[in-house]
Amino acid sequence: MLQSNFLTDLLATITNRAQQATTARDTRPIEQLCEVLLSDIGDVSATKVARAILQKYRGLDAGQRADFFRHLADGFDIDPETVVALAQRYGKTRAPQDLAALITQAEPRRQEILRRLNRIQGATADLVAMRCDLFEAMRNEPSLARIDLDFAHLFASWFNPGFLVLRRINWNSPANILEKIIAYEAVHAIDSWEALRLRLVPEDRQCYAYFHPCMPEEPLIFVEVALTNGIPGNIQSLLAEDRAAASAQQMDTAVFYSISNCQAGLRGISFGNALIKHVVEDLSISQPQLKTFVTLSPIPGYRAWLDGQLETLPVAEAKPLRAALTHPDDKSTALLRRYIAHYLVHEKRPDGSPVNAVARFHLGNGAIVQEVHPHGDTSENGQRGSYGAMVNYLYDPAKIDRNIEGFTTTGTIATSRAITTLLKSAPIQTSKADT
Amino acid sequence: MLQSNFLTDLLATITNRAQQATTARDTRPIEQLCEVLLSDIGDVSATKVARAILQKYRGLDAGQRADFFRHLADGFDIDPETVVALAQRYGKTRAPQDLAALITQAEPRRQEILRRLNRIQGATADLVAMRCDLFEAMRNEPSLARIDLDFAHLFASWFNPGFLVLRRINWNSPANILEKIIAYEAVHAIDSWEALRLRLVPEDRQCYAYFHPCMPEEPLIFVEVALTNGIPGNIQSLLAEDRAAASAQQMDTAVFYSISNCQAGLRGISFGNALIKHVVEDLSISQPQLKTFVTLSPIPGYRAWLDGQLETLPVAEAKPLRAALTHPDDKSTALLRRYIAHYLVHEKRPDGSPVNAVARFHLGNGAIVQEVHPHGDTSENGQRGSYGAMVNYLYDPAKIDRNIEGFTTTGTIATSRAITTLLKSAPIQTSKADT
Amino acid sequence: MLQSNFLTDLLATITNRAQQATTARDTRPIEQLCEVLLSDIGDVSATKVARAILQKYRGLDAGQRADFFRHLADGFDIDPETVVALAQRYGKTRAPQDLAALITQAEPRRQEILRRLNRIQGATADLVAMRCDLFEAMRNEPSLARIDLDFAHLFASWFNPGFLVLRRINWNSPANILEKIIAYEAVHAIDSWEALRLRLVPEDRQCYAYFHPCMPEEPLIFVEVALTNGIPGNIQSLLAEDRAAASAQQMDTAVFYSISNCQAGLRGISFGNALIKHVVEDLSISQPQLKTFVTLSPIPGYRAWLDGQLETLPVAEAKPLRAALTHPDDKSTALLRRYIAHYLVHEKRPDGSPVNAVARFHLGNGAIVQEVHPHGDTSENGQRGSYGAMVNYLYDPAKIDRNIEGFTTTGTIATSRAITTLLKSAPIQTSKADT
Amino acid sequence: MLQSNFLTDLLATITNRAQQATTARDTRPIEQLCEVLLSDIGDVSATKVARAILQKYRGLDAGQRADFFRHLADGFDIDPETVVALAQRYGKTRAPQDLAALITQAEPRRQEILRRLNRIQGATADLVAMRCDLFEAMRNEPSLARIDLDFAHLFASWFNPGFLVLRRINWNSPANILEKIIAYEAVHAIDSWEALRLRLVPEDRQCYAYFHPCMPEEPLIFVEVALTNGIPGNIQSLLAEDRAAASAQQMDTAVFYSISNCQAGLRGISFGNALIKHVVEDLSISQPQLKTFVTLSPIPGYRAWLDGQLETLPVAEAKPLRAALTHPDDKSTALLRRYIAHYLVHEKRPDGSPVNAVARFHLGNGAIVQEVHPHGDTSENGQRGSYGAMVNYLYDPAKIDRNIEGFTTTGTIATSRAITTLLKSAPIQTSKADT
Repeated sequence: MLQSNFLTDLLATITNRAQQATTARDTRPIEQLCEVLLSDIGDVSATKVARAILQKYRGLDAGQRADFFRHLADGFDIDPETVVALAQRYGKTRAPQDLAALITQAEPRRQEILRRLNRIQGATADLVAMRCDLFEAMRNEPSLARIDLDFAHLFASWFNPGFLVLRRINWNSPANILEKIIAYEAVHAIDSWEALRLRLVPEDRQCYAYFHPCMPEEPLIFVEVALTNGIPGNIQSLLAEDRAAASAQQMDTAVFYSISNCQAGLRGISFGNALIKHVVEDLSISQPQLKTFVTLSPIPGYRAWLDGQLETLPVAEAKPLRAALTHPDDKSTALLRRYIAHYLVHEKRPDGSPVNAVARFHLGNGAIVQEVHPHGDTSENGQRGSYGAMVNYLYDPAKIDRNIEGFTTTGTIATSRAITTLLKSAPIQTSKADT
Repeated sequence: MLQSNFLTDLLATITNRAQQATTARDTRPIEQLCEVLLSDIGDVSATKVARAILQKYRGLDAGQRADFFRHLADGFDIDPETVVALAQRYGKTRAPQDLAALITQAEPRRQEILRRLNRIQGATADLVAMRCDLFEAMRNEPSLARIDLDFAHLFASWFNPGFLVLRRINWNSPANILEKIIAYEAVHAIDSWEALRLRLVPEDRQCYAYFHPCMPEEPLIFVEVALTNGIPGNIQSLLAEDRAAASAQQMDTAVFYSISNCQAGLRGISFGNALIKHVVEDLSISQPQLKTFVTLSPIPGYRAWLDGQLETLPVAEAKPLRAALTHPDDKSTALLRRYIAHYLVHEKRPDGSPVNAVARFHLGNGAIVQEVHPHGDTSENGQRGSYGAMVNYLYDPAKIDRNIEGFTTTGTIATSRAITTLLKSAPIQTSKADT
Repeated sequence: MLQSNFLTDLLATITNRAQQATTARDTRPIEQLCEVLLSDIGDVSATKVARAILQKYRGLDAGQRADFFRHLADGFDIDPETVVALAQRYGKTRAPQDLAALITQAEPRRQEILRRLNRIQGATADLVAMRCDLFEAMRNEPSLARIDLDFAHLFASWFNPGFLVLRRINWNSPANILEKIIAYEAVHAIDSWEALRLRLVPEDRQCYAYFHPCMPEEPLIFVEVALTNGIPGNIQSLLAEDRAAASAQQMDTAVFYSISNCQAGLRGISFGNALIKHVVEDLSISQPQLKTFVTLSPIPGYRAWLDGQLETLPVAEAKPLRAALTHPDDKSTALLRRYIAHYLVHEKRPDGSPVNAVARFHLGNGAIVQEVHPHGDTSENGQRGSYGAMVNYLYDPAKIDRNIEGFTTTGTIATSRAITTLLKSAPIQTSKADT
Repeated sequence: MLQSNFLTDLLATITNRAQQATTARDTRPIEQLCEVLLSDIGDVSATKVARAILQKYRGLDAGQRADFFRHLADGFDIDPETVVALAQRYGKTRAPQDLAALITQAEPRRQEILRRLNRIQGATADLVAMRCDLFEAMRNEPSLARIDLDFAHLFASWFNPGFLVLRRINWNSPANILEKIIAYEAVHAIDSWEALRLRLVPEDRQCYAYFHPCMPEEPLIFVEVALTNGIPGNIQSLLAEDRAAASAQQMDTAVFYSISNCQAGLRGISFGNALIKHVVEDLSISQPQLKTFVTLSPIPGYRAWLDGQLETLPVAEAKPLRAALTHPDDKSTALLRRYIAHYLVHEKRPDGSPVNAVARFHLGNGAIVQEVHPHGDTSENGQRGSYGAMVNYLYDPAKIDRNIEGFTTTGTIATSRAITTLLKSAPIQTSKADT
């Protein structure tokens, strides 16, 4: 007689199905079960076979998994000759039934196996894990990448951004979700529940995650946000426990200081841009006093690049640069800002995009390079990756589209007035970057 | 600071996105927008373009929609020659990158359009509606069926049974869901809220529906269940308001007396078998006294078939048959039972499956023909479709798999002992059925 | 393993307990069971006895209920002599234990019976119903009002405004709640589900209800709100199906056009003022464009009063007044406005408060008389009660406190400038009102 | 447009109100504000005054709080003379209005202050905290206990068992609830989140808590349950991380191994018996294989009592007893079991109830003394309180009522056959216990 709750129903649906997996073991080899699954056996039997496959798969060791993947790659591939014939026919007839035949044959049969496995409630998480195993196997056998085409194709459909659910993560969130936040935080580690509490409870902290309805207990990606007065340039101050939080009225800036992807098996399925856009929208409504949306981002790779420069620079130029790295003062800061800005804006890959991956991500989402901070991260970790340098990428909702268009069509990198001026003031001559 | 609710978040996610559709109208033609959508424009812009397409589409009249579909069919089709070349190449190399190229080209470009449209939260319902329009257009131009291949392919992925959520429908369910139950009931019409109440509130009534997380306010299919003492043979008694409901202890039978698909745009995506199986599981747990799971089903088409028989039968045989149809007594019942059972079990389509669609559905799900009732539905509607005949299909969880295997491999139709005996007792000679 | 939902738990708690009521019947008379309940029997047994009492009570007819109430009134009353003795003693000692003894004895024993009955989950609704029966019985035996002192005392504690939960009622609300909204609407009747839909679905309609956590399926009071552009003066236009709703931006006014108490058994426990205040707060946040909060209220009793005036007025004055009532034009409107305003503002009860109960309610809550409308309700119902007259009471959050203070301390009735001017312009001489 | 969630609404109701507390400070002294609160000021103003009182109260130091309590005790007490007069009058008239006057005057005025404070959403938690302060103040001034009569009276109404909500606590519960479980565990301390995880996640662990709807984030009491095969006699084994959990089928026993009251301010308001009964019901339904419901309880005070015995016993008897306490073997166990059982069953307070408080609790709830374990708790804590002794109290749903009746009417302590035999076998002569 109770009004049931959607999440409860959803979890019940998944859980009930999962629990039935206790049926007797099927003794047929997994490859044969895959053939059976593709045959016309009715949905009820197919469910059983699919469960048996997943159960067997879980029991395989790395070698057996490689065998299985090899079989998927070769035994359940397309038949090119058939495809040629059907494509030629369709070229002549343009008839629906001929197109149907072609499409069916031009899709590797293993794709349908994955699709049928996913008909079991709760199987999506198994398939995400299977893809992680595949990545492992692909290291030794690049040819297995053919299977990943199918995973990537299906996951792009299943994890369609239109299917994702944005949830606020806070201290009222279930513990089983929160322990995953601790585990998955990839940028600024959270090393205890107490540390997590400090990221969630204070009024100047927010956290958001994306979930998929079929994996309601598994965050896909999450972002941590600090609300500040003005744009911060230093991560240690931002995270300091004894910081003086701005009052609600003063909080005019939302700082995205950590974005973590949670599911290695969803590599290449992009959630970050949708998440940032979605969070900006939500914050704009719930905290209308916010005027600025900005990141405080690491610059992985910058140290390696700068080390390269130091090796090739004339001694007269290298020396002050070296000194600047170890003696943070106004002068060193001024010098280093130019190098950082140069690295982010001018160092490009052969395809014309920035060498820095984080820059590619935010600039591709429509952000601009707002400001750079030579001594933004004084942690050991920060030193190791970028001599402590950090950067703010700014998201101005009104200009995001224009920035994206510039970036994707002409490779233009939008910068704040300060950075533009900085880059013009005293251009840096660099040795050729070749990554 | 509130612990948020998953459905709330889910609806909020969908709704917020939907409301932003109020952006300025894009004046480019819809076909051009589709091209833009496929180009490399970044996710934020893509979202805008996708919204503009859906908005424009909603404004099209039937003729314009046909134009649009024609363009999708021809302008965004595959290029067979390219496919031929790529298939030949992959036949030689078996290289992942060649397979990737082939797969991409062997998929009509319109499929990616649909996929990108669906990235907008809430767009799934729009695409389901678009497919209804397509069905309309296909009547005149069968060639448009090529587009439906893409819809069918994508919907099968998106509406994967593993993604569905089973919910009990009762008098505590939201009114916006219940009004859809009233609207979608296709078997035994519900003509008012009061009539709905009588289907949901009494203790001997249950109702279940499947939902998709991305259309949480739209039931996909639902089933109404009566809990009875013994297997009923008459729908009017079953639904009578003044019936004496069995006590909880006596209720040993669950009767699936109405199953309705709700979404015309999901034609061909089968939910019924998963639903029945799922409901049997749920009822077995929540009402452990239930021993029998059975339908009370209509037999559409039986009247037309019997009329055909009557025309060709010798007068001596036709006469008592005609009399039996209008004079329900023990003798007429005995005679008619044989005809009904014969129709269900022996009348086949050229492919060997039963001519009766409802029979195909239940037998294909592993049910057996348990009993037939010549006067099971005395309503005008029942007379019109089957001279009032109804049938019980029985689901015995222990035998479902065996039944499916028999049905799918050898076409065997499982029957109860009573029906088996009946069919053997006095076989009926029929004129050739040719549907 | 599921994260449970608070309402689900709450309902489960109530329902589970309720269902256990199927224990064997206790054959002792209800009065004896009450004595047992008061004895020291441990909580588990007390629960059984309490259930037995409620079960027995439900089976009583009106006469038996009166017997039961009589027994409660006399057999479970206080003993005045004991109270006198204990009060004298406490007057001397001021010792806690003496105060404890006094307090215990100065409370009628029946109060503890009610308190112990309420320990059963779900019993609160039974007790609310019992009080309705008591009201019935009190008509014939005013002495039973002594029992109502205990009900009123306990209900004031249990239905403390701090315990109430404000919920929005909309078309997504559960049907079992909505059918109660239909049933309880007391001002402008809702005669079908379709009519209800029109009160909930349009964007310019809102509805709110208060619930108590222990009766989560029973609204206590609800208010219907129309969002308009400007203050409306006519209920028919406001409710017209074909009205042109203002755009979201234009909606600057929230009109409370119907407030209904749902529980007769909670008479005297006031929810209305808390509800209005709470809804004003919620609307101010969710719809910040709203600037004005106003009612469109009936004026029950005005017709009777005016009829009285007509009888005693000189013919020369009565005639145009009579004409005005039947010929709505500018002139008649001007004349009638004065009478309505006079009635609301100047006609008082002996205690100095307004004769009109609706006026007392809103003015007591801090509203002012904003405007009056001689032809605001053209329905038969409106004619019957007030010759069609209606009134707007305005709630200005900034002035509510001052208005309440004026009203409660000096009886001052705050009015808008228009009404103030109107009343000064041409004061009305009335015959003495004596209600 | 969203279907709202009851808990969300409930929390929103509480939170919104709490946040408005930011109004300007009222400068009047708290005692004066209390007078104002009792005057007839309308609900809106009363809310403001009540908030001002609570805000001021929070700012008081211990001395100021004592002053405030003194004022409550004397300045807002009843007037005994008035009560005498009104009781005499009601003795004569038995009129409802006279009873009303008497009841009103026989209730200390401070009670109405507390009631009006509680009208603010969220104030209940403040009042619970205020009572803790009162307990503190009462230590020095026993006369303040008069105020506690009012707290106790009101809390008994507000925290009526019929209002409580039973919730399962598990690893999906919100972190803010779980951190309170860690904080409030009073029997077997939980010293980290990881330790908590081990109490919640394994399949042989359950946890339940009672909540009040007006303090939905504050557990009132919780119980931890272990599911075992057979009745355990040792807490260390029961909690061992490396224990081999029984399979679901084997789990036939539910062991209540820890019950913790969470709210010091609710002292004397008993939740434990209702909780145990409720949890037994819930487990019986959700885990029908459970046959036995039993505690594994500490015996605080047993060591002190036994030390007393040791001092007075003849040396010949004391010596083996002392040896038994330090050398756990079969013989020592046999000897000690007799002492433990004797202590629990025969050592009584002057009123005839057991000296051991835990025994009083469980026996009063209808349990029996099932078995005793001299070495059931080998922790330092266990040694300190009871030389490591523990006891199982058994709850047999079929006999609970009979046990309660025996215990409450004749003081009979029900024991298992084993304990009965043990006590008869070799009765212990003790020195007089005098607690």
